[in-house]
Amino acid sequence: MTIGTIHGVGLGPGAADLMSVRADRLVRGARHVAYFRKSGRRGHARTIVDGMLRDDVVEYPMDYPVTTEIVFTDPRYNECLAAFYATCTAHILSLVQGGEDVVVLCEGDPFFYGSFMHLHSRLKDHAPVAVVPGITGMSGAWTASGAPITWGDDVLTVAMATLPEAELTRRIAETDALVVMKIGRHLPKLRRAIAAAGREGQAWLVEHAAQAAERVRPLVEVEDAPAPYFSIALIHGQGRRP
Amino acid sequence: MTIGTIHGVGLGPGAADLMSVRADRLVRGARHVAYFRKSGRRGHARTIVDGMLRDDVVEYPMDYPVTTEIVFTDPRYNECLAAFYATCTAHILSLVQGGEDVVVLCEGDPFFYGSFMHLHSRLKDHAPVAVVPGITGMSGAWTASGAPITWGDDVLTVAMATLPEAELTRRIAETDALVVMKIGRHLPKLRRAIAAAGREGQAWLVEHAAQAAERVRPLVEVEDAPAPYFSIALIHGQGRRP
Repeated sequence: MTIGTIHGVGLGPGAADLMSVRADRLVRGARHVAYFRKSGRRGHARTIVDGMLRDDVVEYPMDYPVTTEIVFTDPRYNECLAAFYATCTAHILSLVQGGEDVVVLCEGDPFFYGSFMHLHSRLKDHAPVAVVPGITGMSGAWTASGAPITWGDDVLTVAMATLPEAELTRRIAETDALVVMKIGRHLPKLRRAIAAAGREGQAWLVEHAAQAAERVRPLVEVEDAPAPYFSIALIHGQGRRP
Repeated sequence: MTIGTIHGVGLGPGAADLMSVRADRLVRGARHVAYFRKSGRRGHARTIVDGMLRDDVVEYPMDYPVTTEIVFTDPRYNECLAAFYATCTAHILSLVQGGEDVVVLCEGDPFFYGSFMHLHSRLKDHAPVAVVPGITGMSGAWTASGAPITWGDDVLTVAMATLPEAELTRRIAETDALVVMKIGRHLPKLRRAIAAAGREGQAWLVEHAAQAAERVRPLVEVEDAPAPYFSIALIHGQGRRP
């Protein structure tokens, strides 16, 4: 029996027609699809492919055992996630060893802050893994903002809002263009860091880019509640241009 | 007569099936396509869509009047390019004012260091402009490298090799993950900056990602000749992971 292939397929920022032609074909043809989701939710990746799956598809939802209940500095966080990824890996490996291909649905681009990377690192030495890149959530966000993110020789910094406030402030002060992801409950800290870097008037918050609920606002007009998971903050570069 | 729409369409990193389903539909349906190219070349964006265009398509190639013949700090560089963009803008505007839609073919993502941005800024107040994001060349590059670019709360810095050597060195030393574009004849400078930042052993050069000529090498194994235009240097982040 020939071993199957695991396809890590980038679905793009949210609209089904923003996945690549290659991804579209793989998703529509898949007998086995796997995807991560927050426990109790449908899963964003799964939602993107609604209406595209085969009638006889076999779905393998991978429900995160923890998200924010345990802080990630707690050793139990890593133990718990490592055990979870091991279980997912074993199941997917059993499918491909039985000759089946498995499509893993990935929001955005699989190799850019993606959950798939945790499977990839565990699977790549044991089975064929193919990765299909995708349009990133940040591309969706700056497209929604209606303005280019970088010009000429602008430096772009991509930083997570989970960083310490002082580091965030320094990174924001030193870059031309900025993308901040993983905002959630870190929005007040991010806002302080942007203000301390003297750039409050230049920042935008994009929620649900490329989705029905897409919303683009200057950061100064955003209330101090936790931001949706799919929020991205932007500062556009203003570099050299003729 | 209804005014037409200008579509800035991201084609992705190079393989035709890595453009989005939305881009694929727009390209195949277009009566008018426009694209930038280096004078005397076919144009990379145009090459990506080979075999996809309508039989009755009207093509508008936009041949760059200068590329590296004049250094960009010379005022004539800006004058020359500004006149060129004005001509392109006037032609495209005349088409949409005549009721035609125009698809502008864009390598990668239109709003990420893209040539289209120079048309967008000149057209957006005069006609409807719609932008379709694309998979970036850098996503193509890290996918080709076979390893994720960023984990956990890694900081990613995207910098152009056109920057001064000291600034390049500082940026490379201070980031977790790195993408460098616009390498060309700046390869020796980039190599010195990476070495000065103490990261020579971590850097990769990806040429022609997602194309037939795709090539991935450790930077230390690359000769000191000018790199192809479609070269991207990478340092992968090694951030937190369970």
